[in-house]
Amino acid sequence: MNRQQLIDLIRRKKSYLCVGLDSDISKIPSHLLDTEDPVFEFNKQIIDATIEYSVAYKPNLAFYEARGLTGMNSLYKTTEYLEKFKNECFTIADAKRGDIGNTSTQYARAFFDKESSGFNFDAVTVAPYMGEDSVTPFLKFNDKWIIVLALTSNKGASNYQFIADKADVKLFEQVLSTTANWGTPENTMFVVGATRAEMLTEVRKIVPDHFLLVPGVGAQGGSLEEVANYGLNNDCGILVNASRSIIFASGLPDFAEKARAEALSMQKLMESTLKTKGIL
Amino acid sequence: MNRQQLIDLIRRKKSYLCVGLDSDISKIPSHLLDTEDPVFEFNKQIIDATIEYSVAYKPNLAFYEARGLTGMNSLYKTTEYLEKFKNECFTIADAKRGDIGNTSTQYARAFFDKESSGFNFDAVTVAPYMGEDSVTPFLKFNDKWIIVLALTSNKGASNYQFIADKADVKLFEQVLSTTANWGTPENTMFVVGATRAEMLTEVRKIVPDHFLLVPGVGAQGGSLEEVANYGLNNDCGILVNASRSIIFASGLPDFAEKARAEALSMQKLMESTLKTKGIL
Repeated sequence: MNRQQLIDLIRRKKSYLCVGLDSDISKIPSHLLDTEDPVFEFNKQIIDATIEYSVAYKPNLAFYEARGLTGMNSLYKTTEYLEKFKNECFTIADAKRGDIGNTSTQYARAFFDKESSGFNFDAVTVAPYMGEDSVTPFLKFNDKWIIVLALTSNKGASNYQFIADKADVKLFEQVLSTTANWGTPENTMFVVGATRAEMLTEVRKIVPDHFLLVPGVGAQGGSLEEVANYGLNNDCGILVNASRSIIFASGLPDFAEKARAEALSMQKLMESTLKTKGIL
Repeated sequence: MNRQQLIDLIRRKKSYLCVGLDSDISKIPSHLLDTEDPVFEFNKQIIDATIEYSVAYKPNLAFYEARGLTGMNSLYKTTEYLEKFKNECFTIADAKRGDIGNTSTQYARAFFDKESSGFNFDAVTVAPYMGEDSVTPFLKFNDKWIIVLALTSNKGASNYQFIADKADVKLFEQVLSTTANWGTPENTMFVVGATRAEMLTEVRKIVPDHFLLVPGVGAQGGSLEEVANYGLNNDCGILVNASRSIIFASGLPDFAEKARAEALSMQKLMESTLKTKGIL
């Protein structure tokens, strides 16, 4: 999916919601455990319940890899199911990969090259530490995206990401400006955590046009209003991810209904912020 | 495998060689392509040919993930095969993972918890960018190791890893000293690339006792003598990885024989450096 298609999708759904499919089998409703593939069944029902309000889905690979081939099989079935909604959602492999050049090329195939791996995600999250040759191989695929970790939503973000060099440039700022030179706003996004919403002002000075993937709203405590206030640009320019607050809104048989209600409530707030900013 | 067992293994084999199983199917000898699982067959023959001289094996996940479930199945069969040599080699999942705390816990299960994922590696490589809670969940498993990226062997390493803060501490130095506080030399190693062997002197000032995993010897151009000279400590303290220079020493039916010769030649040099340093 290219940038214009993504923007059109956001305008159509009046939403910039991304649903994180962090489908931990120990947390899914127990009545699903008797089905053939509980995690896939859970994801399917979550997708059906939220597709009207969500523009993106982001399975985090860790939750699938933790269960080995069984887990990866659930993920394949989930992505196949998402193909039915190809023009209705953007898909993100939250994998945080990155390796030396010839190896990152293999990771790019793992997430983008359906013939090779079976996966056909629109985007993959990428870790910046190893620099240019670890990032650029992902950019060789048309209409595919990298989403590079800049400022993450977790506590450990403060260990390195705020380290300032002698010119007072912080590491996450270096990552933003350096990575922006390797790709374009047509193929590069950045992860900027909602738990540090006030930092979005600084981020927007460096990358005014790029899309930002903003995790940390919901279970991690970030505020959607603040994110919208500091992060929206004229093309919307943000995807706000919520995982646990939506998919585990209820652990009972009404989980899909409750997920839908939670997604709708976020969509309504998003619609209002898009109108306030004159984007709708 | 714990630290003492690893040291004993190194003394027994007179080697600190790690063989990287970056088994790219497009590079394996064509006569294997007719077998049921060419990548597993290739790995099996490489392991058989090198086990006498190698103390560790390090499959890089990217080469398996690129081929989807088929690739992951080859990797499972490879790790099962390696279990036969359980006391004869240390196994490393080169995966460069790292995510927020609850997600890194899932990645730890993916590589260490056999009942959950089917994998039972001794160690996993970890990316440092997301900080403490992305790293420490891996340390909760007994006799399992993290190998944290500090100074990598690729060109892109220079983008961020050498950035110095106001006290002139470089990012990779911060990563070494900060990570060393979360774990111990019993469960933590660091990646330090051989292409920057002279930097090992600086590294050893910060982490004198930790094991270092040193990639970049061979195809990437690093020198084994220099690595030994700057990197060895009293317990050996290094694992030198070679991937392409061993596994693709020949692309013909003699590939295993040539791999064995290459591994033997490295082992001989390693034995000599261990003797020079008084470790043997």
